[in-house]
Amino acid sequence: MFEQLGLIGCGLMGGSFALALKRAGLVKRVVGYSKSPSTTERARLMGVIDVEAPSALLAVSGADIVLIAVPVAATEATLKAIRHLITPQMLIMDVGSTKRDVVDAARRVLREQVGTFVPAHPVAGKELSGVEHADPDLYTGKQVILTPIERTLTANLQKAAATWQALGCNVVRMSPESHDAAFAAVSHLPHLIAFALMNTITGQPNGRDFLSLAGPGFRDFTRIAASDSKMWRDVMLANREELLAQADLFRRTLQALELMIESGNGEALEGLIHQASQTRANWRMTSNKPSH
Amino acid sequence: MFEQLGLIGCGLMGGSFALALKRAGLVKRVVGYSKSPSTTERARLMGVIDVEAPSALLAVSGADIVLIAVPVAATEATLKAIRHLITPQMLIMDVGSTKRDVVDAARRVLREQVGTFVPAHPVAGKELSGVEHADPDLYTGKQVILTPIERTLTANLQKAAATWQALGCNVVRMSPESHDAAFAAVSHLPHLIAFALMNTITGQPNGRDFLSLAGPGFRDFTRIAASDSKMWRDVMLANREELLAQADLFRRTLQALELMIESGNGEALEGLIHQASQTRANWRMTSNKPSH
Repeated sequence: MFEQLGLIGCGLMGGSFALALKRAGLVKRVVGYSKSPSTTERARLMGVIDVEAPSALLAVSGADIVLIAVPVAATEATLKAIRHLITPQMLIMDVGSTKRDVVDAARRVLREQVGTFVPAHPVAGKELSGVEHADPDLYTGKQVILTPIERTLTANLQKAAATWQALGCNVVRMSPESHDAAFAAVSHLPHLIAFALMNTITGQPNGRDFLSLAGPGFRDFTRIAASDSKMWRDVMLANREELLAQADLFRRTLQALELMIESGNGEALEGLIHQASQTRANWRMTSNKPSH
Repeated sequence: MFEQLGLIGCGLMGGSFALALKRAGLVKRVVGYSKSPSTTERARLMGVIDVEAPSALLAVSGADIVLIAVPVAATEATLKAIRHLITPQMLIMDVGSTKRDVVDAARRVLREQVGTFVPAHPVAGKELSGVEHADPDLYTGKQVILTPIERTLTANLQKAAATWQALGCNVVRMSPESHDAAFAAVSHLPHLIAFALMNTITGQPNGRDFLSLAGPGFRDFTRIAASDSKMWRDVMLANREELLAQADLFRRTLQALELMIESGNGEALEGLIHQASQTRANWRMTSNKPSH
């Protein structure tokens, strides 16, 4: 049970965390700050936060839990803004989709206090951003990846895990490096592809007509293409090495399929499609398995 | 109102059509045939068809409406099998995802009777195939593309349009060529990409671990990767020219994005992501618009 959540960034991710924590009875008071004062005000009017803070630093003042829910590129500046009020009793977490850059920033900025910070990536989201889409159920049944470093305080790591678990999450622990490699493959690359596909279509003279014919397969495939452009620019630049390696592998795999189509090699083509189809048919989101 | 539907191929697409036609009170009797006798029997036991026919030819005998719902590569053989019992009073349709190859096959096989055939592509489906997934609502609210040729009988075209409309579909008419170009972009390419992505991930040493971390974005993006391998092999080979042209455009677009990431050109990257995101956010499936 926490006394006060300092929420920095009252958007979809931060707002949903505040709502979930409140509903679970895990926090008494939420003090929030967003870069845009109108967002902070809207968050208060919606009951997502209880008190508006005029700065990130003041949102942290008196908090025993702090969530940094800003675009990954703004993490370092946020840590700088709050470091003077960080105490060893505070649990500080983020929600960023990349972890190596966040951990590097935390080491640089927090120095001897870096142990209070537990890097976190809740694998949840919507293609809609903003506090108006905040949802206390956003994290329910989802995975949360924690990427502690050698200096992370055990007490804080345990508190972080227990908090997410209390919100119905499946907590997984791994290194920042493994995290970034995995999410380049299963999240960042799919987003990059979805953006590229939309632009491929609209870049053609008949693109708009094509779009008017698209059906439910296209709808689901491109849902993630509607995601926030600033957030995804940051994620892709922050994880560029891993993402480019995955994109390169993908382009080779695609080209191999294209060659089979070109040469009319139906048997090989069917074999590779079958492999993909079986893998996908047998895949389930881990957090949806009752055994996890 | 039809007396008898001759259904060739009692799978997901054909079975759903039979169920929808029956529910709408548009047909008195359904005579079905599938290549596999156990499928035909299951369709009868499920009430999808009323009578099992021992051959495609006998399924057509006495029918005033015929639906060919077989993999596109089997269309020509099916037309050959039934042509001797085709009468000018019959409405014959298919449900294939490609149309140029189907129209070519119909011209070759049906000759002077080609006017009875109305090429149709209902833009609906599931990643699950088989009669056990047949659903009378599969086509409700979906688009159906009709691609008549100059010899198509006006009466049959009108009857075809009226039938799909009676099932709650939005009927669109276009040339087989325009159809294939559009669906290469909005359906065949997304499927090819989804298959390639799955294989890219499982082809890596840590691929299985990566998959266990994937979340809801990945789930929706890859749903179509679970599709039937034989059907998609056929579609891709049948529409290879248009598909390869789209795949080539896509690879260039992807590579341009990769270059921006590599060079750290955040502004250009954000601009292209924003363009994709806006397009997708403003897109709605045509058939879901009440005004259509």
